[in-house]
Amino acid sequence: MRLRGRKGILEALEAQPELAILQPEQFKGKWSSVFGNDRPIHVELGMGKGRFISQLSALNPDINYIGVDMYDELIRRGCEKARESREEHGGDLSNLRLVRYNIESIENMFGDNEIERIYLNFSDPWPKKKHARRRLTHGGFVKKYEDILNDNGQIHFKTDSRSLFEFSLNSFADLGLRMRNISLDLHAEGPRTDLIMTEYETKFSEKGMPIHRMEVVIGKQALADHLQALANTEDK
Amino acid sequence: MRLRGRKGILEALEAQPELAILQPEQFKGKWSSVFGNDRPIHVELGMGKGRFISQLSALNPDINYIGVDMYDELIRRGCEKARESREEHGGDLSNLRLVRYNIESIENMFGDNEIERIYLNFSDPWPKKKHARRRLTHGGFVKKYEDILNDNGQIHFKTDSRSLFEFSLNSFADLGLRMRNISLDLHAEGPRTDLIMTEYETKFSEKGMPIHRMEVVIGKQALADHLQALANTEDK
Ligand SMILES: C[S@@+](CC[C@H](N)C(=O)[O-])C[C@H]1O[C@@H](n2cnc3c(N)ncnc32)[C@H](O)[C@@H]1O
Ligand SMILES: C[S@@+](CC[C@H](N)C(=O)[O-])C[C@H]1O[C@@H](n2cnc3c(N)ncnc32)[C@H](O)[C@@H]1O
Repeated sequence: MRLRGRKGILEALEAQPELAILQPEQFKGKWSSVFGNDRPIHVELGMGKGRFISQLSALNPDINYIGVDMYDELIRRGCEKARESREEHGGDLSNLRLVRYNIESIENMFGDNEIERIYLNFSDPWPKKKHARRRLTHGGFVKKYEDILNDNGQIHFKTDSRSLFEFSLNSFADLGLRMRNISLDLHAEGPRTDLIMTEYETKFSEKGMPIHRMEVVIGKQALADHLQALANTEDK
Repeated sequence: MRLRGRKGILEALEAQPELAILQPEQFKGKWSSVFGNDRPIHVELGMGKGRFISQLSALNPDINYIGVDMYDELIRRGCEKARESREEHGGDLSNLRLVRYNIESIENMFGDNEIERIYLNFSDPWPKKKHARRRLTHGGFVKKYEDILNDNGQIHFKTDSRSLFEFSLNSFADLGLRMRNISLDLHAEGPRTDLIMTEYETKFSEKGMPIHRMEVVIGKQALADHLQALANTEDK
Protein backbone atom coordinates (compact mmCIF):
# COMPACT_ATOMS: atom_id res chain seq x y z
CA MET A 1 0.00 0.00 0.00
CA ARG A 2 1.92 3.07 -1.20
CA LEU A 3 -0.87 5.48 -1.91
CA ARG A 4 -1.92 7.38 1.16
CA GLY A 5 -3.18 10.85 1.89
CA ARG A 6 -1.51 13.61 3.85
CA LYS A 7 -2.97 12.17 7.05
CA GLY A 8 -1.51 8.72 6.39
CA ILE A 9 1.91 10.22 5.76
CA LEU A 10 1.77 12.26 8.95
CA GLU A 11 0.77 9.19 10.95
CA ALA A 12 3.71 7.27 9.49
CA LEU A 13 6.07 10.07 10.59
CA GLU A 14 4.55 10.36 14.06
CA ALA A 15 5.07 6.61 14.49
CA GLN A 16 8.89 6.98 14.29
CA PRO A 17 9.82 9.96 16.51
CA GLU A 18 13.32 8.51 17.01
CA LEU A 19 14.02 9.40 13.35
CA ALA A 20 11.42 11.88 12.06
CA ILE A 21 11.00 15.25 13.78
CA LEU A 22 8.01 17.47 13.07
CA GLN A 23 8.40 20.12 15.79
CA PRO A 24 12.11 20.93 15.78
CA GLU A 25 11.95 24.37 17.44
CA GLN A 26 11.68 22.74 20.88
CA PHE A 27 15.22 21.40 20.37
CA LYS A 28 16.88 24.73 19.54
CA GLY A 29 20.14 24.83 21.47
CA LYS A 30 19.56 21.25 22.72
CA TRP A 31 20.36 19.03 19.75
CA SER A 32 23.19 17.34 21.65
CA SER A 33 20.65 16.03 24.12
CA VAL A 34 18.53 14.73 21.22
CA PHE A 35 21.51 12.70 20.02
CA GLY A 36 22.63 11.90 23.55
CA ASN A 37 26.26 13.00 22.88
CA ASP A 38 28.43 16.03 22.03
CA ARG A 39 29.55 14.97 18.59
CA PRO A 40 29.62 17.53 15.77
CA ILE A 41 26.34 18.13 13.96
CA HIS A 42 26.20 18.32 10.17
CA VAL A 43 23.01 19.52 8.49
CA GLU A 44 21.71 19.17 4.94
CA LEU A 45 19.30 21.95 4.02
CA GLY A 46 16.79 20.82 1.38
CA MET A 47 17.63 17.12 1.50
CA GLY A 48 14.95 16.01 -0.99
CA LYS A 49 14.54 12.23 -0.96
CA GLY A 50 17.46 11.91 1.44
CA ARG A 51 19.92 9.60 -0.27
CA PHE A 52 22.93 11.83 0.43
CA ILE A 53 22.36 12.26 4.16
CA SER A 54 21.35 8.60 4.62
CA GLN A 55 24.56 7.35 3.08
CA LEU A 56 26.80 9.96 4.68
CA SER A 57 25.39 9.21 8.15
CA ALA A 58 25.84 5.47 7.60
CA LEU A 59 29.51 6.02 6.68
CA ASN A 60 30.31 8.40 9.58
CA PRO A 61 28.84 7.11 12.86
CA ASP A 62 30.91 9.66 14.83
CA ILE A 63 29.09 12.62 13.33
CA ASN A 64 25.46 13.51 13.97
CA TYR A 65 23.39 14.35 10.89
CA ILE A 66 20.19 16.29 10.43
CA GLY A 67 18.38 16.38 7.10
CA VAL A 68 15.87 19.20 6.62
CA ASP A 69 13.10 19.51 4.07
CA MET A 70 9.70 21.15 4.14
CA TYR A 71 7.55 18.32 2.74
CA ASP A 72 6.10 15.46 4.82
CA GLU A 73 6.30 13.09 1.88
CA LEU A 74 10.02 13.73 1.43
CA ILE A 75 10.66 13.16 5.13
CA ARG A 76 8.77 9.87 4.86
CA ARG A 77 10.80 8.77 1.86
CA GLY A 78 13.96 9.91 3.66
CA CYS A 79 13.09 7.64 6.58
CA GLU A 80 12.71 4.73 4.17
CA LYS A 81 16.04 5.55 2.49
CA ALA A 82 17.72 5.81 5.86
CA ARG A 83 16.53 2.36 6.94
CA GLU A 84 17.63 0.91 3.60
CA SER A 85 21.07 2.53 3.93
CA ARG A 86 21.56 0.83 7.29
CA GLU A 87 20.63 -2.54 5.79
CA GLU A 88 23.30 -1.89 3.16
CA HIS A 89 26.07 -0.39 5.31
CA GLY A 90 25.18 -1.72 8.77
CA GLY A 91 25.05 0.48 11.86
CA ASP A 92 22.07 2.01 13.59
CA LEU A 93 20.14 5.22 13.00
CA SER A 94 21.04 6.93 16.26
CA ASN A 95 23.19 9.59 14.51
CA LEU A 96 20.47 10.74 12.11
CA ARG A 97 17.34 12.86 12.35
CA LEU A 98 15.10 13.95 9.49
CA VAL A 99 13.29 17.17 10.15
CA ARG A 100 10.30 18.78 8.47
CA TYR A 101 10.93 22.50 8.58
CA ASN A 102 11.07 25.64 6.49
CA ILE A 103 14.68 26.77 6.17
CA GLU A 104 13.56 30.39 6.11
CA SER A 105 13.22 30.16 9.90
CA ILE A 106 16.41 28.17 10.42
CA GLU A 107 17.45 30.52 13.26
CA ASN A 108 14.49 29.18 15.28
CA MET A 109 15.68 25.60 14.88
CA PHE A 110 19.35 25.99 15.88
CA GLY A 111 21.06 28.08 18.52
CA ASP A 112 24.23 30.10 17.93
CA ASN A 113 27.31 27.94 17.22
CA GLU A 114 25.25 24.78 17.44
CA ILE A 115 26.29 23.08 14.21
CA GLU A 116 29.57 22.40 12.44
CA ARG A 117 28.66 22.01 8.80
CA ILE A 118 25.89 22.90 6.36
CA TYR A 119 25.42 20.98 3.12
CA LEU A 120 23.49 22.73 0.36
CA ASN A 121 22.88 20.26 -2.45
CA PHE A 122 21.10 21.32 -5.64
CA SER A 123 19.15 24.03 -3.91
CA ASP A 124 16.26 25.47 -5.90
CA PRO A 125 17.82 28.02 -8.32
CA TRP A 126 14.95 30.56 -8.24
CA PRO A 127 16.09 31.97 -11.59
CA LYS A 128 13.95 35.11 -11.57
CA LYS A 129 15.70 38.18 -10.22
CA LYS A 130 12.70 39.11 -8.05
CA HIS A 131 13.06 35.76 -6.24
CA ALA A 132 16.77 36.21 -5.49
CA ARG A 133 16.09 36.45 -1.73
CA ARG A 134 14.75 32.88 -1.74
CA ARG A 135 18.03 31.41 -2.98
CA LEU A 136 19.64 29.52 -0.10
CA THR A 137 22.97 31.26 -0.76
CA HIS A 138 21.49 34.76 -0.59
CA GLY A 139 23.14 37.00 1.98
CA GLY A 140 19.99 36.92 4.12
CA PHE A 141 20.35 33.16 4.57
CA VAL A 142 24.14 33.15 4.79
CA LYS A 143 24.08 35.57 7.73
CA LYS A 144 21.83 33.11 9.58
CA TYR A 145 24.23 30.27 8.73
CA GLU A 146 27.13 32.30 10.14
CA ASP A 147 25.29 32.54 13.46
CA ILE A 148 24.40 28.88 13.85
CA LEU A 149 27.76 27.51 12.63
CA ASN A 150 30.48 27.00 15.24
CA ASP A 151 34.24 27.75 15.19
CA ASN A 152 34.86 24.82 12.85
CA GLY A 153 31.94 25.87 10.67
CA GLN A 154 31.89 25.26 6.92
CA ILE A 155 29.35 25.31 4.11
CA HIS A 156 29.60 22.69 1.35
CA PHE A 157 27.61 23.63 -1.71
CA LYS A 158 26.89 21.66 -4.92
CA THR A 159 24.63 22.52 -7.83
CA ASP A 160 24.04 21.85 -11.50
CA SER A 161 22.75 25.40 -11.95
CA ARG A 162 25.32 27.70 -13.52
CA SER A 163 23.26 30.76 -12.68
CA LEU A 164 22.82 29.78 -9.01
CA PHE A 165 26.52 29.01 -8.73
CA GLU A 166 27.42 32.36 -10.29
CA PHE A 167 25.04 34.11 -7.90
CA SER A 168 26.55 32.22 -4.96
CA LEU A 169 30.16 33.05 -5.90
CA ASN A 170 29.24 36.74 -5.86
CA SER A 171 27.16 36.40 -2.71
CA PHE A 172 30.00 34.80 -0.72
CA ALA A 173 32.60 37.13 -2.26
CA ASP A 174 30.54 40.22 -1.39
CA LEU A 175 30.21 39.00 2.19
CA GLY A 176 34.00 38.70 2.32
CA LEU A 177 33.84 34.97 3.00
CA ARG A 178 36.60 32.55 2.19
CA MET A 179 35.83 30.07 -0.58
CA ARG A 180 37.96 27.06 -1.49
CA ASN A 181 38.00 23.91 -3.61
CA ILE A 182 35.87 25.65 -6.20
CA SER A 183 34.96 23.32 -9.04
CA LEU A 184 33.06 24.18 -12.23
CA ASP A 185 32.91 20.56 -13.39
CA LEU A 186 33.22 18.30 -10.38
CA HIS A 187 33.20 14.99 -12.20
CA ALA A 188 35.40 16.10 -15.12
CA GLU A 189 38.06 13.53 -14.27
CA GLY A 190 35.63 10.72 -13.40
CA PRO A 191 32.86 10.57 -10.76
CA ARG A 192 33.88 11.90 -7.33
CA THR A 193 32.11 9.11 -5.48
CA ASP A 194 34.05 10.02 -2.32
CA LEU A 195 31.72 13.01 -2.00
CA ILE A 196 28.49 10.93 -2.30
CA MET A 197 26.16 11.80 -5.14
CA THR A 198 22.67 13.14 -4.45
CA GLU A 199 19.55 12.14 -6.41
CA TYR A 200 19.68 15.32 -8.48
CA GLU A 201 23.41 14.97 -9.02
CA THR A 202 23.08 11.49 -10.50
CA LYS A 203 20.30 12.65 -12.79
CA PHE A 204 22.14 15.72 -14.09
CA SER A 205 25.56 14.07 -14.34
CA GLU A 206 24.11 11.26 -16.43
CA LYS A 207 22.86 13.91 -18.86
CA GLY A 208 26.43 15.18 -19.15
CA MET A 209 25.75 18.42 -17.29
CA PRO A 210 28.68 19.82 -15.30
CA ILE A 211 28.28 19.93 -11.52
CA HIS A 212 29.59 22.96 -9.64
CA ARG A 213 30.90 22.74 -6.08
CA MET A 214 32.63 24.85 -3.48
CA GLU A 215 33.34 25.00 0.21
CA VAL A 216 33.02 28.15 2.30
CA VAL A 217 35.15 28.39 5.40
CA ILE A 218 33.19 30.23 8.09
CA GLY A 219 34.39 29.38 11.61
CA LYS A 220 37.46 31.04 13.18
CA GLN A 221 39.24 27.76 13.82
CA ALA A 222 38.32 26.39 10.39
CA LEU A 223 39.81 29.54 8.86
CA ALA A 224 43.00 29.31 10.90
CA ASP A 225 43.41 25.65 9.90
CA HIS A 226 42.80 26.51 6.26
CA LEU A 227 45.38 29.32 6.22
CA GLN A 228 47.90 27.04 7.91
CA ALA A 229 47.28 24.34 5.29
CA LEU A 230 47.75 26.87 2.47
CA ALA A 231 51.00 28.11 4.03
CA ASN A 232 52.26 24.53 4.31
CA THR A 233 51.52 23.83 0.63
CA GLU A 234 53.33 26.99 -0.39
CA ASP A 235 56.44 25.94 1.53
CA LYS A 236 56.77 22.86 -0.65
CA MET B 1 53.21 43.54 -49.98
CA ARG B 2 52.10 41.57 -46.89
CA LEU B 3 54.62 38.75 -46.85
CA ARG B 4 57.83 39.70 -45.09
CA GLY B 5 60.37 37.93 -42.94
CA ARG B 6 61.21 38.52 -39.30
CA LYS B 7 63.64 41.26 -40.36
CA GLY B 8 60.98 43.12 -42.30
CA ILE B 9 58.60 42.99 -39.36
CA LEU B 10 61.25 44.28 -36.97
CA GLU B 11 62.07 47.14 -39.34
CA ALA B 12 58.39 48.08 -39.51
CA LEU B 13 58.24 48.21 -35.70
CA GLU B 14 61.46 50.20 -35.39
CA ALA B 15 60.02 52.73 -37.86
CA GLN B 16 57.21 53.69 -35.41
CA PRO B 17 58.84 54.10 -31.99
CA GLU B 18 56.02 56.45 -30.92
CA LEU B 19 53.70 53.39 -30.87
CA ALA B 20 55.75 50.18 -30.82
CA ILE B 21 58.23 49.56 -28.02
CA LEU B 22 60.80 46.77 -28.23
CA GLN B 23 62.99 47.57 -25.19
CA PRO B 24 60.51 48.41 -22.44
CA GLU B 25 62.78 47.77 -19.44
CA GLN B 26 64.38 51.20 -19.88
CA PHE B 27 60.99 52.74 -18.99
CA LYS B 28 60.47 50.89 -15.72
CA GLY B 29 59.17 53.46 -13.23
CA LYS B 30 59.09 56.12 -15.98
CA TRP B 31 56.02 55.32 -18.05
CA SER B 32 54.43 58.65 -17.18
CA SER B 33 57.26 60.39 -18.95
CA VAL B 34 56.75 58.15 -21.98
CA PHE B 35 53.13 59.34 -22.17
CA GLY B 36 54.04 62.87 -21.12
CA ASN B 37 51.37 63.01 -18.40
CA ASP B 38 50.31 61.44 -15.07
CA ARG B 39 47.12 59.76 -16.21
CA PRO B 40 46.34 56.25 -14.99
CA ILE B 41 47.95 53.41 -16.92
CA HIS B 42 45.94 50.33 -17.92
CA VAL B 43 47.77 47.31 -19.31
CA GLU B 44 46.57 44.31 -21.33
CA LEU B 45 48.79 41.28 -20.83
CA GLY B 46 48.76 39.00 -23.88
CA MET B 47 46.90 41.37 -26.21
CA GLY B 48 47.09 39.13 -29.30
CA LYS B 49 46.11 41.05 -32.43
CA GLY B 50 45.20 44.07 -30.33
CA ARG B 51 41.60 44.84 -31.16
CA PHE B 52 40.52 45.23 -27.52
CA ILE B 53 43.25 47.66 -26.48
CA SER B 54 42.98 49.64 -29.74
CA GLN B 55 39.30 50.24 -29.28
CA LEU B 56 39.46 50.83 -25.53
CA SER B 57 42.23 53.41 -25.95
CA ALA B 58 40.28 55.15 -28.72
CA LEU B 59 37.22 55.42 -26.44
CA ASN B 60 39.11 56.63 -23.34
CA PRO B 61 41.63 59.34 -24.25
CA ASP B 62 42.11 60.21 -20.55
CA ILE B 63 43.65 56.83 -19.74
CA ASN B 64 47.00 55.60 -20.97
CA TYR B 65 47.07 52.08 -22.38
CA ILE B 66 49.86 49.57 -22.86
CA GLY B 67 49.32 46.34 -24.77
CA VAL B 68 51.88 43.59 -24.19
CA ASP B 69 52.58 40.51 -26.27
CA MET B 70 55.71 38.51 -26.94
CA TYR B 71 55.52 38.24 -30.73
CA ASP B 72 56.80 40.88 -33.19
CA GLU B 73 54.13 39.96 -35.71
CA LEU B 74 51.34 40.54 -33.20
CA ILE B 75 52.79 43.93 -32.25
CA ARG B 76 52.90 44.85 -35.93
CA ARG B 77 49.27 43.82 -36.43
CA GLY B 78 48.36 45.65 -33.25
CA CYS B 79 49.90 48.84 -34.66
CA GLU B 80 47.79 48.42 -37.79
CA LYS B 81 44.63 47.83 -35.72
CA ALA B 82 45.41 50.85 -33.60
CA ARG B 83 45.73 53.14 -36.63
CA GLU B 84 42.49 51.72 -38.06
CA SER B 85 40.68 52.28 -34.74
CA ARG B 86 41.66 55.95 -34.82
CA GLU B 87 40.34 56.28 -38.36
CA GLU B 88 37.06 54.82 -37.07
CA HIS B 89 36.77 56.62 -33.72
CA GLY B 90 38.94 59.68 -34.28
CA GLY B 91 41.57 60.82 -31.80
CA ASP B 92 45.32 60.32 -31.85
CA LEU B 93 47.54 57.48 -30.68
CA SER B 94 49.32 59.38 -27.94
CA ASN B 95 47.63 57.34 -25.13
CA LEU B 96 48.68 53.95 -26.51
CA ARG B 97 51.87 51.91 -26.60
CA LEU B 98 52.27 48.35 -27.86
CA VAL B 99 55.11 46.51 -26.23
CA ARG B 100 56.93 43.33 -27.19
CA TYR B 101 57.81 41.64 -23.94
CA ASN B 102 57.60 38.38 -22.04
CA ILE B 103 55.12 38.76 -19.17
CA GLU B 104 57.18 36.37 -17.07
CA SER B 105 59.51 39.31 -16.38
CA ILE B 106 56.75 41.87 -15.92
CA GLU B 107 58.43 43.15 -12.73
CA ASN B 108 61.32 44.41 -14.89
CA MET B 109 58.99 46.43 -17.07
CA PHE B 110 56.97 48.23 -14.37
CA GLY B 111 57.94 49.75 -11.04
CA ASP B 112 55.94 49.30 -7.83
CA ASN B 113 52.50 50.97 -7.93
CA GLU B 114 53.07 52.14 -11.47
CA ILE B 115 49.84 50.91 -13.08
CA GLU B 116 46.16 51.05 -12.21
CA ARG B 117 44.62 48.16 -14.06
CA ILE B 118 45.57 44.84 -15.65
CA TYR B 119 43.40 43.21 -18.30
CA LEU B 120 43.86 39.49 -18.84
CA ASN B 121 41.83 38.45 -21.88
CA PHE B 122 41.69 34.83 -22.99
CA SER B 123 45.07 34.02 -21.54
CA ASP B 124 46.58 30.71 -22.65
CA PRO B 125 44.92 28.03 -20.47
CA TRP B 126 47.96 25.72 -20.13
CA PRO B 127 45.67 22.78 -19.34
CA LYS B 128 48.35 20.35 -18.15
CA LYS B 129 48.88 20.37 -14.41
CA LYS B 130 52.67 20.48 -14.81
CA HIS B 131 52.30 23.79 -16.67
CA ALA B 132 50.13 25.41 -13.97
CA ARG B 133 52.87 27.94 -13.15
CA ARG B 134 52.65 29.39 -16.65
CA ARG B 135 48.99 30.37 -16.24
CA LEU B 136 48.80 34.16 -15.97
CA THR B 137 46.54 33.85 -12.90
CA HIS B 138 48.96 31.59 -11.02
CA GLY B 139 49.99 32.94 -7.62
CA GLY B 140 53.52 33.54 -8.88
CA PHE B 141 52.21 36.03 -11.45
CA VAL B 142 49.52 37.51 -9.21
CA LYS B 143 52.10 38.45 -6.58
CA LYS B 144 53.97 40.42 -9.24
CA TYR B 145 50.73 42.13 -10.28
CA GLU B 146 50.09 43.12 -6.66
CA ASP B 147 53.45 44.90 -6.61
CA ILE B 148 53.05 46.88 -9.82
CA LEU B 149 49.38 47.83 -9.27
CA ASN B 150 48.68 51.04 -7.37
CA ASP B 151 46.14 51.89 -4.64
CA ASN B 152 43.32 51.87 -7.20
CA GLY B 153 44.61 48.63 -8.68
CA GLN B 154 42.26 46.06 -10.23
CA ILE B 155 42.56 43.00 -12.44
CA HIS B 156 39.88 42.37 -15.09
CA PHE B 157 39.92 38.82 -16.38
CA LYS B 158 37.94 37.17 -19.19
CA THR B 159 38.25 33.70 -20.64
CA ASP B 160 36.35 31.03 -22.53
CA SER B 161 38.26 28.33 -20.66
CA ARG B 162 36.24 26.78 -17.85
CA SER B 163 39.30 25.07 -16.45
CA LEU B 164 41.40 28.25 -16.43
CA PHE B 165 38.56 30.17 -14.82
CA GLU B 166 38.14 27.48 -12.17
CA PHE B 167 41.88 27.55 -11.52
CA SER B 168 41.80 31.34 -11.28
CA LEU B 169 38.87 31.43 -8.83
CA ASN B 170 40.85 29.15 -6.52
CA SER B 171 44.09 31.02 -7.09
CA PHE B 172 42.57 34.40 -6.13
CA ALA B 173 40.58 32.87 -3.26
CA ASP B 174 43.67 31.14 -1.84
CA LEU B 175 45.55 34.45 -1.97
CA GLY B 176 42.70 36.00 0.03
CA LEU B 177 41.93 38.49 -2.75
CA ARG B 178 38.57 40.14 -3.25
CA MET B 179 36.70 39.06 -6.38
CA ARG B 180 33.55 40.72 -7.72
CA ASN B 181 31.23 40.80 -10.72
CA ILE B 182 31.92 37.13 -11.32
CA SER B 183 30.16 35.89 -14.44
CA LEU B 184 30.03 32.32 -15.77
CA ASP B 185 28.21 33.32 -18.96
CA LEU B 186 28.93 36.96 -19.66
CA HIS B 187 26.78 37.33 -22.74
CA ALA B 188 23.84 35.25 -21.44
CA GLU B 189 21.47 38.19 -21.62
CA GLY B 190 22.78 39.55 -24.94
CA PRO B 191 26.29 40.69 -25.92
CA ARG B 192 27.98 42.98 -23.35
CA THR B 193 29.39 45.30 -25.99
CA ASP B 194 30.09 47.90 -23.29
CA LEU B 195 33.03 45.73 -22.23
CA ILE B 196 34.53 45.51 -25.78
CA MET B 197 34.93 42.05 -27.24
CA THR B 198 38.38 40.67 -28.03
CA GLU B 199 39.21 38.62 -31.14
CA TYR B 200 39.05 35.36 -29.20
CA GLU B 201 35.84 36.41 -27.48
CA THR B 202 34.04 37.03 -30.77
CA LYS B 203 35.22 33.68 -32.09
CA PHE B 204 34.14 31.66 -29.04
CA SER B 205 30.88 33.55 -28.43
CA GLU B 206 29.80 32.93 -32.01
CA LYS B 207 30.26 29.21 -31.37
CA GLY B 208 27.87 29.55 -28.42
CA MET B 209 30.56 28.99 -25.80
CA PRO B 210 30.00 30.79 -22.48
CA ILE B 211 32.51 33.50 -21.58
CA HIS B 212 33.68 33.78 -17.96
CA ARG B 213 34.66 37.07 -16.38
CA MET B 214 35.61 38.55 -13.04
CA GLU B 215 37.26 41.55 -11.47
CA VAL B 216 39.78 41.34 -8.66
CA VAL B 217 40.06 44.33 -6.37
CA ILE B 218 43.69 44.73 -5.34
CA GLY B 219 44.54 48.31 -4.31
CA LYS B 220 43.73 49.68 -0.83
CA GLN B 221 41.65 52.55 -2.15
CA ALA B 222 39.88 50.33 -4.68
CA LEU B 223 38.99 47.95 -1.85
CA ALA B 224 37.71 50.75 0.40
CA ASP B 225 35.57 52.11 -2.47
CA HIS B 226 34.22 48.63 -3.17
CA LEU B 227 33.27 47.98 0.45
CA GLN B 228 31.59 51.37 0.62
CA ALA B 229 29.61 50.62 -2.53
CA LEU B 230 28.51 47.25 -1.10
CA ALA B 231 27.42 48.90 2.16
CA ASN B 232 25.43 51.48 0.19
CA THR B 233 23.60 48.79 -1.79
CA GLU B 234 22.75 46.92 1.40
CA ASP B 235 21.23 50.05 2.92
CA LYS B 236 18.65 50.14 0.14
C1 LIG C 1 16.09 20.52 -6.07
S1 LIG C 1 15.76 19.66 -4.60
C2 LIG C 1 17.32 18.90 -4.22
C3 LIG C 1 17.20 17.68 -3.34
C4 LIG C 1 18.49 16.99 -2.92
N1 LIG C 1 19.34 17.85 -2.09
C5 LIG C 1 19.27 16.47 -4.10
O1 LIG C 1 20.36 17.03 -4.38
O2 LIG C 1 18.87 15.50 -4.74
C6 LIG C 1 15.63 20.98 -3.43
C7 LIG C 1 14.94 20.56 -2.15
O3 LIG C 1 14.97 21.67 -1.24
C8 LIG C 1 13.72 21.72 -0.55
N2 LIG C 1 13.50 23.11 -0.12
C9 LIG C 1 13.51 24.21 -0.90
N3 LIG C 1 13.27 25.31 -0.18
C10 LIG C 1 13.10 24.90 1.10
C11 LIG C 1 12.79 25.57 2.32
N4 LIG C 1 12.63 26.90 2.36
N5 LIG C 1 12.71 24.83 3.44
C12 LIG C 1 12.88 23.49 3.41
N6 LIG C 1 13.17 22.81 2.28
C13 LIG C 1 13.26 23.50 1.14
C14 LIG C 1 12.70 21.26 -1.57
O4 LIG C 1 11.56 20.76 -0.94
C15 LIG C 1 13.49 20.18 -2.33
O5 LIG C 1 13.29 18.90 -1.76
C1 LIG D 1 44.90 33.18 -26.60
S1 LIG D 1 45.65 34.67 -27.02
C2 LIG D 1 44.45 35.91 -26.61
C3 LIG D 1 44.64 37.18 -27.36
C4 LIG D 1 43.68 38.33 -27.04
N1 LIG D 1 43.85 38.79 -25.66
C5 LIG D 1 42.24 37.98 -27.33
O1 LIG D 1 41.47 37.83 -26.35
O2 LIG D 1 41.85 37.85 -28.48
C6 LIG D 1 46.90 34.81 -25.79
C7 LIG D 1 48.01 35.80 -26.14
O3 LIG D 1 48.90 35.90 -25.02
C8 LIG D 1 50.24 35.97 -25.50
N2 LIG D 1 51.11 35.49 -24.44
C9 LIG D 1 51.04 34.29 -23.83
N3 LIG D 1 52.03 34.17 -22.91
C10 LIG D 1 52.74 35.32 -22.97
C11 LIG D 1 53.89 35.79 -22.27
N4 LIG D 1 54.50 35.04 -21.33
N5 LIG D 1 54.35 37.03 -22.57
C12 LIG D 1 53.73 37.79 -23.52
N6 LIG D 1 52.64 37.39 -24.20
C13 LIG D 1 52.15 36.17 -23.93
C14 LIG D 1 50.23 35.10 -26.73
O4 LIG D 1 51.28 35.46 -27.60
C15 LIG D 1 48.84 35.38 -27.33
O5 LIG D 1 48.88 36.42 -28.25
